Parts: sequence; structure tokens; C-alpha cells
Amino acid sequence: MDLKFYQDLVVPAQTKIVMIIMDGLGGLPLEAGGKTELETAFTPNLDALAKHSALGLTVPVGLGTTPGSGPGHLAIFGYDPIQYQIGRGAMEALGVDFDMGPNDVAARGNFCTVNSKGVLLDRRAGRLPTEESNKLAELLRTITIDGAEFFIEPVKEHRFAFVMRGSGLGDDLTETDPLTNGVPPLPVRALNQNSLRSAELANQFVWQAGKLLANKQPANMILLRGFARFPVIPMYQQLFGLNPAAIALNGMYRGVARMVGMTVLDVDGNTLADEFATLEKHWGQFDFFYIHVKKTDTCGENGDFEGKVRVIEEVDALIPRLMALNPDVVIVGGDHSSPSLLKAHSWHPVPVLVYSPFVRADGVAEFGERVCEHGSLGLVPATHIMPIAMANALRITKYGA
Amino acid sequence: MDLKFYQDLVVPAQTKIVMIIMDGLGGLPLEAGGKTELETAFTPNLDALAKHSALGLTVPVGLGTTPGSGPGHLAIFGYDPIQYQIGRGAMEALGVDFDMGPNDVAARGNFCTVNSKGVLLDRRAGRLPTEESNKLAELLRTITIDGAEFFIEPVKEHRFAFVMRGSGLGDDLTETDPLTNGVPPLPVRALNQNSLRSAELANQFVWQAGKLLANKQPANMILLRGFARFPVIPMYQQLFGLNPAAIALNGMYRGVARMVGMTVLDVDGNTLADEFATLEKHWGQFDFFYIHVKKTDTCGENGDFEGKVRVIEEVDALIPRLMALNPDVVIVGGDHSSPSLLKAHSWHPVPVLVYSPFVRADGVAEFGERVCEHGSLGLVPATHIMPIAMANALRITKYGA
Repeated sequence: MDLKFYQDLVVPAQTKIVMIIMDGLGGLPLEAGGKTELETAFTPNLDALAKHSALGLTVPVGLGTTPGSGPGHLAIFGYDPIQYQIGRGAMEALGVDFDMGPNDVAARGNFCTVNSKGVLLDRRAGRLPTEESNKLAELLRTITIDGAEFFIEPVKEHRFAFVMRGSGLGDDLTETDPLTNGVPPLPVRALNQNSLRSAELANQFVWQAGKLLANKQPANMILLRGFARFPVIPMYQQLFGLNPAAIALNGMYRGVARMVGMTVLDVDGNTLADEFATLEKHWGQFDFFYIHVKKTDTCGENGDFEGKVRVIEEVDALIPRLMALNPDVVIVGGDHSSPSLLKAHSWHPVPVLVYSPFVRADGVAEFGERVCEHGSLGLVPATHIMPIAMANALRITKYGA
Repeated sequence: MDLKFYQDLVVPAQTKIVMIIMDGLGGLPLEAGGKTELETAFTPNLDALAKHSALGLTVPVGLGTTPGSGPGHLAIFGYDPIQYQIGRGAMEALGVDFDMGPNDVAARGNFCTVNSKGVLLDRRAGRLPTEESNKLAELLRTITIDGAEFFIEPVKEHRFAFVMRGSGLGDDLTETDPLTNGVPPLPVRALNQNSLRSAELANQFVWQAGKLLANKQPANMILLRGFARFPVIPMYQQLFGLNPAAIALNGMYRGVARMVGMTVLDVDGNTLADEFATLEKHWGQFDFFYIHVKKTDTCGENGDFEGKVRVIEEVDALIPRLMALNPDVVIVGGDHSSPSLLKAHSWHPVPVLVYSPFVRADGVAEFGERVCEHGSLGLVPATHIMPIAMANALRITKYGA
């Protein structure tokens, strides 16, 4: 989709769109000829919704391409996931709910162990316990360098997110991690003129970190890799004229939502029901809601077919609460497939339904991979779902006279 | 598909992919409401394979575009057939199994007849018998010019393939064939600086050929057209990380396969069964096999509906020998359609099945145009088939975090 082309057709309206993303929704049967997780689940409410919906299968990146969560979400949000890439450092910062801005350069950080000559002995400092990392992160936060702010956010074990904030900082930088022990960490080098200042700041930070950590055991140094700014991406407000909100329990999804302009709502609790309660609470304030369901993917990646079935059934049981709010358009889909059979993300297209009074409904009271294959949306690039939803929300005007 | 994008996702694996291409597979019913050749054929083995496969229709170049064999093959091999073009001269050289290299410029050659003033009397020298052409080709092979090698390979009747080999030879050249009798052949002109040397060599060759043939009847001159180098194309080894082999009886298909990096295997015999015996013999040595079936197209072009049905049935009978090898992924498809009704290549999308334990099988025990129309692969660009096969062979890693 050409976003600029589309943006020019957007008109205001009072309608509301809800997008429910079950992470890794698409699946496979465990045995040839069997049913997928979604086909197995008892989903009377989704089935009833499907009957009045257009069904299809979304392709997040391309046929035969397995998407990570970042590209999978950008695609269903309407953005070409090859044109708009989220670097590894930025993903790490999103994962800990760090509010990245346009002046930030993020990196993945590791605590590591070096010998007295600065040679790497252990790139992960023995997978340092998270509590110790937290203390060391506090120490690193005391580092100050003129002209930039630094943020250190512990992730897990030896890992942390590192962010430099300052004006005009480029991200075309080499990494300090040599990816092997027995050699010293590398200096950060700028790969272009715009990143010279970033390289200098990063190197100063690493040098100071080394001094601060010198007497610690086993973590006496840090490594930085995957330097990345946020992609410059059109916001939902400008692109679709929407006032959007996100309901998600995990940092990364909250982060990607924030990246496209969504207000990330606080969820009081950590269940699916709590997420739907958040939707009810804020229903009057926004006209687009993204609700993220994490556990479908977790179960898929764990090879837990039955668990994934149960999570889908849990979502199904909450659908009446959504429909009681009388939304104009409802999208139920996924960011990618995660079949329990493969215990991983996969390349398979993802079931999707688009409900509205104005879709050409398929009239099939079932939501599953096979009925979606034969649905009226066909095999559709995920990026087309938002335009279809916007049209059904009567938020798009005619193209040409 | 952006090949560079895809190449970066390829990971090693031990899996094997087999691609069976029935040339001109797609067909049409002879009468409205009837069955196509593929639908008519009794294919119990392909039907059984189809039941556990994803079905679809491939579009080689574009809807409404009839592909030649070159573009049809490049597309199903994964290459954009508009970006990568094989010039006419190169196709002629491939057709006689000539092993073209990066320093070669090929052209289509004709023996022709001129009068004493050099004016063309017959552009085809009365469609000279092939045996006479062979003798004249021997004569032309005696021509030597400093700084290049020349190759003359007879094709059929008055036609031959002409190849100049030398470093830095461009192919932006005009043709000597004026496309009409009553005028003299044209000189070769270079259309850019890089092709000046090629033009000079070609003109010298034509001049010497004219002297050698001066007293022959009726073929006393030659015409050259369609000068072309090979396209620079990413090899299967680098692009897909595959060690690929080709099994084909006809020069052109062997040539296109060689062009993308396939090892062209010798077939002991000239039947379909001999081709499958070659597959069995070399099964342990390669991880990708392309098997070409020529006669489906020959029958289609001859308007021989029944003959095409029988060839498809012959392929079907050999499928158990393939499946006994336990391949991980099997593709059965075509390079283009050749309906007997039209006695020619056509623009119709081509039936395809992709078998693997990880496809979302359509569960339909039938292989034919109409079931493929409703298959889960949909109407798919032929270039997407290899990425889908690679994904199912678990040879692709996740895109993005």
C-alpha cells in the first residue's frame, strides 16, 4: 500500500475500530488431515462473528517468509515491514517498555568478563543473575557525559537495553562485541559522518563503564551491539486520522504500538479479562483499539497445542464484552503463525476476520485456517487489512471524480 | 520477491527439494464445460500427493502474458522474468546445449542466398537441409580472428547458433538481417562504446564467411541477429544455499538450469523413466533436483489432447519412485500453459502442488486446473514457489526480531 496515496483519502468519522491480535494465531494440524489449534478450539462467539464477517488469510511479509514479532505487527498495523525496519537495539528498548523518541539511539547491552589485559573471557559474564544486573545498571546510570543523556534498562540476566539521547545522533555504528572470547572488545566506529558523535559518546560510555566495573566479579565490562534509532514512520493520527490506543501486557508490543502513535493504556492486572476491562474503561476516549493476546504465541512456541487452544477459547469467551460496546469494525487476526507442531514462528498465512455491517460477509459461521482460505478476502497482504477496516468504518472518501 | 532480501534469511539444512516441471502443463477443455488434459488424465499418484499438498495456480510473468520457455522457467526457478531476460541469441545457444560463459556473446545465425552484387535473394537459403548446414558449419569453424574464439553450432535447416568468446565483449549490437529480400545484409553496428569490439569481430567474421561460402549453392552468405550475452543472475548456491541438479533431455532446459547454477546430469536414455532413474542414481549427491518433462508441451503445441493426457499419466506412474526416496518437499508444476485447443503456449495460470509435512494441505485428492483455482496457494506469482518450498524445507530463518 502506498501510504501517502491512502492518507489523502482519509475523512473524519465517529466510528470505532477494534483490532484483536492473537500473537502467532496461525497453526497446523498435529497430524495430516487433522485440525489446527484454531479449528480445534470451541469458539461459539468468534464463529457467530465470522458469519457476519469477511474472512481471509493475511501474509505479513511474503509467502515463504517467517516474520519476527516486529515486522508481523508493523504489517498488520498497515506498514510495509521491509520498508520500515526496527533495529535490534530498538527492539530491546521496546521490550522493556522504554519510551524511545526521535533523538534516541538504542543498543543491546551485555555485561561481560575481561582479564587484566582487557581480553574477553566470557561475553555473558556467566549469565549473571538478573538481581546483580539490576545493581550494576544502577551504577552505570551514574555515568554522565556532556551533550547526551544515557539510559540503562535491565532486561534479563546479563542483558540490558542501552539508550543514548541527544540531538543529531546517527546510528550507523559498528558493534563492540567481537562475537568471540579471547580478544578485546572492539571500539565503536562511525560508518558515516552523521554518526561520528554517536560513536564518540558510545566509546566514552564504554570506557567509563569499564572503570566503574573494574573491581566487580564476574561482570567487569560491557558490550554494545545492534545500534538503532527508531524508524521514521507515519503516525496513525496523520495516516489514518485515528486517535488510537493500545492494550498489551508485554513491553515489545506496547513499544511497537507507541511507535506508530498509539496511546498505551495501563492495564490493571495481567489477564485477558483485565485487557478487556481496560477496553471497556477507555471506550469513550479513543476510536481505534489494538488488543494484544500474547499467550497464543507462547503456547505455540512451547509446542503446547492444547494450551494454545485454551487461550483461543479464553479470547472467545470475552468477545461478547467487546460486542456489547457496539464497535463499528472488528478485526480478529494475528501478527504471524506459530504452529505448535513447529514450536516456532512460521511462514504460514494467518487467519483474519473483518466484521462490519458493510463487509460482504462470507456467511460461514466458523473461524479457522481452512474456512479463511476460502474467504472473500483471499490471501491478502497484511498491510491491506487497515485500509479495508478504514473503508468499512466509512473513513475513506472516493478516489478521483 | 527481492532476492537479496530473501538470500539473507537462508540457513543450512539437510532437507531435499524436488521440482517436477511438466512443460506447458496448463490446459483447456476442448469443449465448453469439459475437462482439461490434466483433469482428464488418470493420476492416482498425483491425486494422493495432492491430498497432502497445498494447491494453487502459478502466474509465470503476468496475467494475460504468454511466456516463452525461458521466462517460464526463470519464473518457477524464482527469478523475476522481466528483470532477468535471456536474449534470443543466448536462447539459441542454450538450445543446442552450448555451455555459455560470461565472456560469450551469442547470436542466431541463418545461412542465406545473395546475388553477385550481394543483394539478398533468400534469407533462408531455401531452408537448406540440416546435413548441408552441418557441412557448412564445419567450414565456418575454420575462420580465425585474433582476440576472440568463435563457435558455430548447427540447429536445424538453415539455422545455427553463433558465439564469440573474448574478454570485454558487449552485446548492444544491431543485426545484419534486414528482414526482407532485395537489399544487401546490413553491417553490425555497436550501440555503445562497450560493444565496438564485438561489432568489429562480427563484421570480420561475416566478411570471411562470405569469402568461404562464395561458390556454394544456395547458401553463399550468413545473417546474424539477436546478439546477446547471458544475464548476470544470482546462482542457486548463493541465493538459496542449495546444491542443485537438473535432469532434462533438451538443450534449452539444460541451458537455463546451468545458467542458475544447476549441475546438469547426464541421462542414460531418452525416456521419462530414464530421467527418474537419473534422479535415483544421484539422490545422495544433491539437495535440489529439477526434472523437466518436455512432451506435455510438444503434444499441447501439436493440438494432441490425448497425447498430452498420456504423457501426464506416464509422469503419474513414476511418482511412487520419487516418493520412495522420501523427499522433504515436492513441487509439481509447469513453466507455462500449452492448451491443445490453442496449439500454442498460452497465458493461462499453471496448476501447481507443493507437498511437505508442513504445508497447510488442502486435503483435496485431485490435481487439476479447477481444484488448483480453489487451492490454498491461490493465484500465486511463479516466483513465490521457491520461497514457499524453501520455507517448507526449513531452510529459512525468521525475518526481524
